[in-house]
Amino acid sequence: MEGPALTAAAKRRHESLLRTLAHPTNTVPKLADDTTFEFNVIASEKLPEYAQLDLFHRAVYPFMLLAQFFAVMPLIGIRQPNPRRVRFAYKSLPMIVTVTFIAATLTLLAAMLKHLLEIGINAKNFVGLVFFGCVLLAYFVFIRLARRWPHLIRYWTRTELVFNRAPYEMPKRNLYKRVQLAGLMIIGLSIGEHAMFQISAILTYKRRIQLCSAAANVTAVTSFEDYARTNYDYAFQWLPYNPVMAALLLLINGACTFVWNYMDLFIMMVSKGLSYRFEQITARIRKLEHEEVTESTFIEIREHYVNMCELLEYVDSSMSSLILLSCVNNLYFVCYQLLNVFNKLRWPINYIYFWYSLLYLIGRTAFVFLTAADINEESKRGLGILRRVSSKSWCVEVERLIFQMTTQVVALSGKKFYFLTRRLLFGMAGTIVTYELVLLQFDEPNRRKGLLPLCA
Amino acid sequence: MEGPALTAAAKRRHESLLRTLAHPTNTVPKLADDTTFEFNVIASEKLPEYAQLDLFHRAVYPFMLLAQFFAVMPLIGIRQPNPRRVRFAYKSLPMIVTVTFIAATLTLLAAMLKHLLEIGINAKNFVGLVFFGCVLLAYFVFIRLARRWPHLIRYWTRTELVFNRAPYEMPKRNLYKRVQLAGLMIIGLSIGEHAMFQISAILTYKRRIQLCSAAANVTAVTSFEDYARTNYDYAFQWLPYNPVMAALLLLINGACTFVWNYMDLFIMMVSKGLSYRFEQITARIRKLEHEEVTESTFIEIREHYVNMCELLEYVDSSMSSLILLSCVNNLYFVCYQLLNVFNKLRWPINYIYFWYSLLYLIGRTAFVFLTAADINEESKRGLGILRRVSSKSWCVEVERLIFQMTTQVVALSGKKFYFLTRRLLFGMAGTIVTYELVLLQFDEPNRRKGLLPLCA
Amino acid sequence: MEGPALTAAAKRRHESLLRTLAHPTNTVPKLADDTTFEFNVIASEKLPEYAQLDLFHRAVYPFMLLAQFFAVMPLIGIRQPNPRRVRFAYKSLPMIVTVTFIAATLTLLAAMLKHLLEIGINAKNFVGLVFFGCVLLAYFVFIRLARRWPHLIRYWTRTELVFNRAPYEMPKRNLYKRVQLAGLMIIGLSIGEHAMFQISAILTYKRRIQLCSAAANVTAVTSFEDYARTNYDYAFQWLPYNPVMAALLLLINGACTFVWNYMDLFIMMVSKGLSYRFEQITARIRKLEHEEVTESTFIEIREHYVNMCELLEYVDSSMSSLILLSCVNNLYFVCYQLLNVFNKLRWPINYIYFWYSLLYLIGRTAFVFLTAADINEESKRGLGILRRVSSKSWCVEVERLIFQMTTQVVALSGKKFYFLTRRLLFGMAGTIVTYELVLLQFDEPNRRKGLLPLCA
Amino acid sequence: MEGPALTAAAKRRHESLLRTLAHPTNTVPKLADDTTFEFNVIASEKLPEYAQLDLFHRAVYPFMLLAQFFAVMPLIGIRQPNPRRVRFAYKSLPMIVTVTFIAATLTLLAAMLKHLLEIGINAKNFVGLVFFGCVLLAYFVFIRLARRWPHLIRYWTRTELVFNRAPYEMPKRNLYKRVQLAGLMIIGLSIGEHAMFQISAILTYKRRIQLCSAAANVTAVTSFEDYARTNYDYAFQWLPYNPVMAALLLLINGACTFVWNYMDLFIMMVSKGLSYRFEQITARIRKLEHEEVTESTFIEIREHYVNMCELLEYVDSSMSSLILLSCVNNLYFVCYQLLNVFNKLRWPINYIYFWYSLLYLIGRTAFVFLTAADINEESKRGLGILRRVSSKSWCVEVERLIFQMTTQVVALSGKKFYFLTRRLLFGMAGTIVTYELVLLQFDEPNRRKGLLPLCA
Repeated sequence: MEGPALTAAAKRRHESLLRTLAHPTNTVPKLADDTTFEFNVIASEKLPEYAQLDLFHRAVYPFMLLAQFFAVMPLIGIRQPNPRRVRFAYKSLPMIVTVTFIAATLTLLAAMLKHLLEIGINAKNFVGLVFFGCVLLAYFVFIRLARRWPHLIRYWTRTELVFNRAPYEMPKRNLYKRVQLAGLMIIGLSIGEHAMFQISAILTYKRRIQLCSAAANVTAVTSFEDYARTNYDYAFQWLPYNPVMAALLLLINGACTFVWNYMDLFIMMVSKGLSYRFEQITARIRKLEHEEVTESTFIEIREHYVNMCELLEYVDSSMSSLILLSCVNNLYFVCYQLLNVFNKLRWPINYIYFWYSLLYLIGRTAFVFLTAADINEESKRGLGILRRVSSKSWCVEVERLIFQMTTQVVALSGKKFYFLTRRLLFGMAGTIVTYELVLLQFDEPNRRKGLLPLCA
Repeated sequence: MEGPALTAAAKRRHESLLRTLAHPTNTVPKLADDTTFEFNVIASEKLPEYAQLDLFHRAVYPFMLLAQFFAVMPLIGIRQPNPRRVRFAYKSLPMIVTVTFIAATLTLLAAMLKHLLEIGINAKNFVGLVFFGCVLLAYFVFIRLARRWPHLIRYWTRTELVFNRAPYEMPKRNLYKRVQLAGLMIIGLSIGEHAMFQISAILTYKRRIQLCSAAANVTAVTSFEDYARTNYDYAFQWLPYNPVMAALLLLINGACTFVWNYMDLFIMMVSKGLSYRFEQITARIRKLEHEEVTESTFIEIREHYVNMCELLEYVDSSMSSLILLSCVNNLYFVCYQLLNVFNKLRWPINYIYFWYSLLYLIGRTAFVFLTAADINEESKRGLGILRRVSSKSWCVEVERLIFQMTTQVVALSGKKFYFLTRRLLFGMAGTIVTYELVLLQFDEPNRRKGLLPLCA
Repeated sequence: MEGPALTAAAKRRHESLLRTLAHPTNTVPKLADDTTFEFNVIASEKLPEYAQLDLFHRAVYPFMLLAQFFAVMPLIGIRQPNPRRVRFAYKSLPMIVTVTFIAATLTLLAAMLKHLLEIGINAKNFVGLVFFGCVLLAYFVFIRLARRWPHLIRYWTRTELVFNRAPYEMPKRNLYKRVQLAGLMIIGLSIGEHAMFQISAILTYKRRIQLCSAAANVTAVTSFEDYARTNYDYAFQWLPYNPVMAALLLLINGACTFVWNYMDLFIMMVSKGLSYRFEQITARIRKLEHEEVTESTFIEIREHYVNMCELLEYVDSSMSSLILLSCVNNLYFVCYQLLNVFNKLRWPINYIYFWYSLLYLIGRTAFVFLTAADINEESKRGLGILRRVSSKSWCVEVERLIFQMTTQVVALSGKKFYFLTRRLLFGMAGTIVTYELVLLQFDEPNRRKGLLPLCA
Repeated sequence: MEGPALTAAAKRRHESLLRTLAHPTNTVPKLADDTTFEFNVIASEKLPEYAQLDLFHRAVYPFMLLAQFFAVMPLIGIRQPNPRRVRFAYKSLPMIVTVTFIAATLTLLAAMLKHLLEIGINAKNFVGLVFFGCVLLAYFVFIRLARRWPHLIRYWTRTELVFNRAPYEMPKRNLYKRVQLAGLMIIGLSIGEHAMFQISAILTYKRRIQLCSAAANVTAVTSFEDYARTNYDYAFQWLPYNPVMAALLLLINGACTFVWNYMDLFIMMVSKGLSYRFEQITARIRKLEHEEVTESTFIEIREHYVNMCELLEYVDSSMSSLILLSCVNNLYFVCYQLLNVFNKLRWPINYIYFWYSLLYLIGRTAFVFLTAADINEESKRGLGILRRVSSKSWCVEVERLIFQMTTQVVALSGKKFYFLTRRLLFGMAGTIVTYELVLLQFDEPNRRKGLLPLCA
């Protein structure tokens, strides 16, 4: 169900729920007070309304559950509607899965590093190391995040409960729908990208065998083993080949691709969760236009606004590493792929894959940035109305709210090195163009060589 | 007539007009309330004063009318003095014209793309694709803008009515004259550019035929057909040649050039329309110096200032795509043309055209930027006087006004990625120089080759 | 005399002087009220104290007088202590001198352009055109400034009179001394630079003749004519040679060098004149620490601060073109000279001249920037004390003053494209390094060629 | 001892100490009032509690003492717990040591310059000049700082005494521990770096002798003399060789390396000393949450905050040259070393040294920047709580505090050209990447040549 008007009964229930929950609302989160929460978990056992509310936890849990299968963010109780049930434990099944995947990725990374040190690292084959390195880092960053997640999601839920009752209204498209849409789109497109990658690799392999066999007057023999050995040469130089191993390799590779995409998806979902609430605040402010508003209303609005800012600050401090990693990763891959734009490829399928992949990458990067920048845009959108508050309604609280909205940079950041705003994206685009121009010039000699002989 | 002192009678008429119009002044525009407007249209039928007022609609309509002939912004009733008569309809004559032009442009773009894929795309011949691509995008952006225009122009008119009566004074040169001047200048120079382009092409063609015929001992035969086939080879590889088709081609090409110029002209006119009102506010503030001013005056001024900011915000949200497109387009062409500065050309006429075109391009780009940046400059110009308000006249309203003027970026933006201010232009100039230096180095080998043989 | 403690009598005389002068102090300058000034000129004839006061006009007039001999800023009455005597007239002796010099410079520029078009313009020989072009532009910019100067200097004097009496104190080193020091240093170093340039040219010429004659077994004949013809080949290809013409050429060249240096000197003097007053305001604020200050004192300080900001704004609007020209000129020459750092030169004297010239250029550029940026630094220096104002003394006026100091960018600007602050200098340094790195790479092939044969 | 809870008696003693000390707390430091201090030195002779307090002087003195052995910051009485005993004198033992080291470094620099002028300066061997030049400059900058240090450390101590008593609490890890940790880490790693450098040089030398002797069928003879002559060729071309001289040379080289590292260490310690106090202010503000706070409390907090800002300002004005020098030095060496990443080296030990050195350099640079940027971050951390101050507790003082925290850039700066904040680091990283890309391209031809012959 998505955001129906709450019945009076439900509202009353909400309010009692809020009373029991709301008193610690204003505290800065302290990780130590988890024990008091444990008690509350039992007390609120009879409050099944969580499933009815438009909460962030409800919106993201399907994707977090999916991520668990790929060993990302090992948490227990993620399926429970009550965010208090979410727990982290080192001794748990998800954690075992995660450790297994990390070990596998580490093996691949080591195999690739060994391989590259043998044939010589250059700017082109470096990309594989970056890929596996980023994924490995992401695993660790997600584990660190998972440890904070139970506390974070409880704090988040407490802060957002107030937005589920009047005078706040649910926007036309609720949080659940928004997150679903973004999530399914990213996942769909990334599956497409990975499938295209496999198809491109298989077709290229087949055609090469056919042509080279024909040239050498040998019967063309394509086999899964040969294909795997060719494409994962770095791994099979080290590991013994057998079909199970090859299948595992493909699986690990797929998991890595998932993680690589999930980083961005996760940032996007969190951003949507935050900007959604700022949107509700803006909507509430907008409704006040032309009305005589009492100071107490402004006090309340400002309190909620400040609470959201505090939540954002807390989320930012937990997520900053992930954001930094995702940005560096995206910038590297965008630069890398842009550099290949003028390269000649052998088969049409390679072109199709390349362009699909490039556009997907740029699109995903832009989408993450813009979604995150939306928090910043949304947090300032109420200013226009507040500036029109008449002399009569004007009070210190409005002044404080305007001052805060004007001077505070409400945005996710990469470890405070930069804030994800629209202006940043503009600056970055300019810088990327500079890099590309220099790199293209650098790469000119390689590009001129053209294609390598097919059957070397 | 241009801004004479209004007679008392006219003033009274104005005020009644304003009373009937002004009550919805303070609302944020909602597209849905068009129906209530329809009623007003009939009610205000007896108010022909629109033609007497110094309104934005009156200033721009000649150019918008002209643009209609080139299929830009298909609107109905643009000639009416009353902005409420302006309407948009999908089933209308202007729309049919627009669709026709779009189809034609699309055909040219497709023909060029096909041609380039055959001969190989490179950085030099890519420019044609960008040109037609930008024009095509502009058509669509203008259609989207046209849909919003009826509402926008009504909202704009309502907001600016108040600036047509005392205490606001008309500046020495009114809006109509300003827009005329800028518009005629741009159109004149762009016609010059296009004419020069044609002359350069024709003369180059003729000289080549003469010289090559002389070299091959053949009688030189120049014909319109041959000229068209040579210069529009990409089109006639696909389309059958006949004189009508060739004439059409020239027409479409001309229309595309018009659209390409009109983007900038339109932004310029809108900018002038907005900064003109801020200028009036500044003038009013300036008159208050050395006077004891009551708070109610400041309340009024602040209200008008906030209204203008809201209008700007609304215009910006409607125009941002156009601004972004125009900026990217201008930057690309400036970079492209600058890159050709050191190229050798064959005939003097080529040099004349090249330099005229380059200077025109840079001039136009700078002019658009500076005109748009004027909004920003003008919006802050009252600050100096407000800072000198004496302790006695000082009140919360002045404080609010100063705070708003100081902290708000009042400027058109490119989708909020950047704001069109003077500082941006400085930063961009620096970046363009970097790009050029790298690109010049890149292009060095091509440049050294010099001219290709004439009669290949 | 430099800033002695004023006697009581002198003080009283000042105050009467101020009374007669001060009433138009607070008005934004209007060029039209010059006629009322004319009356005042006669009235204040009996006020010879101007020569005793520490005024900007008194500090700069020696340099402005010197500049007149080189046709810069043609004004009448610049020697008068009373700034009201300064006048501009198209029909005047200085103007005739200026026009003559402009004509001469124009001739040189045309000769050089003609010469370069014949031998082909490239990035290296382009520098001469830039030099003469900048000087020519500077002449025109200075004429435009001269027209505004009489009004500007009166307005300036009126604004700064208040800083000549208590409670303002004269800093240890007064304005006159500061300007003298900076001016004499720049002029001394620039004469050194020009002399070195001539010596380098002469020695190079002599050695070449000696060596080449020796190589060709001819008697070495050096003559002024030959020297002039060699070094000013571009001019004598067009003009007939005779000794007077050659001497004139050297003179014009020297005058151009003077103008080229004077641009920076002038900006520096104006900057010192402005920052001096802000320094006095800071000093006054500093004295108030630990005292109970009444609101009226803060009102007065704020008034003077705002007046200085207004004056700065007015000066900036008059000088912006000059600042822009000077910056572009300096950046171009710094980049150009830095590019030559790795070039091989033939004689030690060439190295000495090159390094002297390069260091002088960089030093002068940095000096102009830093002096101008000092206005910005100085204008904010009072903030520290104001922030410590105790709760008791706190009042709206302090709040306004702090707010203004915090949010207003008090600095000279280049047509508002950028503000001359210390941070700008940092950004520009970073950009120049980028340019240099790219340009050095670009210039690599030329550099490798080494020296051209001596006796070609 | 590290920050135990103070006993009541100690507290009382503190307070009397504070009374005697605190009255000049609010004054801007004037270098002239040193004489009054001298009196106080005697008066406070009976106050041995300095050694018990968590003061900056106590935290840094071990490292400053160590630095004295390497001739950095020649001060007397640095070992005394009482900061008033610290003195600077030109005629003192430390000063003699310093002058000796400066002379030695100058000799090395001159020898290297002479050597390079003979073999030709290029971008690669330029690095030695930069190293010795920076060290030499650092010596002078440190002497200038030493002259100001006695006054500065007294002012600092006076300002920070207040943070040693209630209501301020000591953070978990006190200043002494923090500085120790950072200091020992840097010193340990830098000793490692220098040792690795020597080992790498010795092994390279030995292997070369062995291989080349074998190739030439000569007995390999390695000696300290030959080693010294090879590695310090520039010095022994000028100076006579003898073992003492060689040992001295190694010593001077080591001292230079120490100074080169100590610059960064010193900035880091100062930064930690400042951000520690801001952290205490933040902690105090945090404790006020949910309490009804009287205005007097806010007055006190604001006073301490302003005092810290003033202290920072004063420290910045004394240290700016050092910061500028350290930044330029670090940027140059990071760029230089990054450029060598793709170079081929001969022996594994060279790779180990190179990578250790590169990572150490980048790590140290980032660490200095981040530690300095922490001041900025910490100074704004109280804002979140202050924004939540309820309407009841709201007062002008809170407003002033928020305004100041929001608008003032509280950070160390490089002569005000830039402020050491996290955003700066981000911008610099982007610029360094641009430089590297261009430089790598530039250096391409050299890189392709590969290793030079071993036994040339």
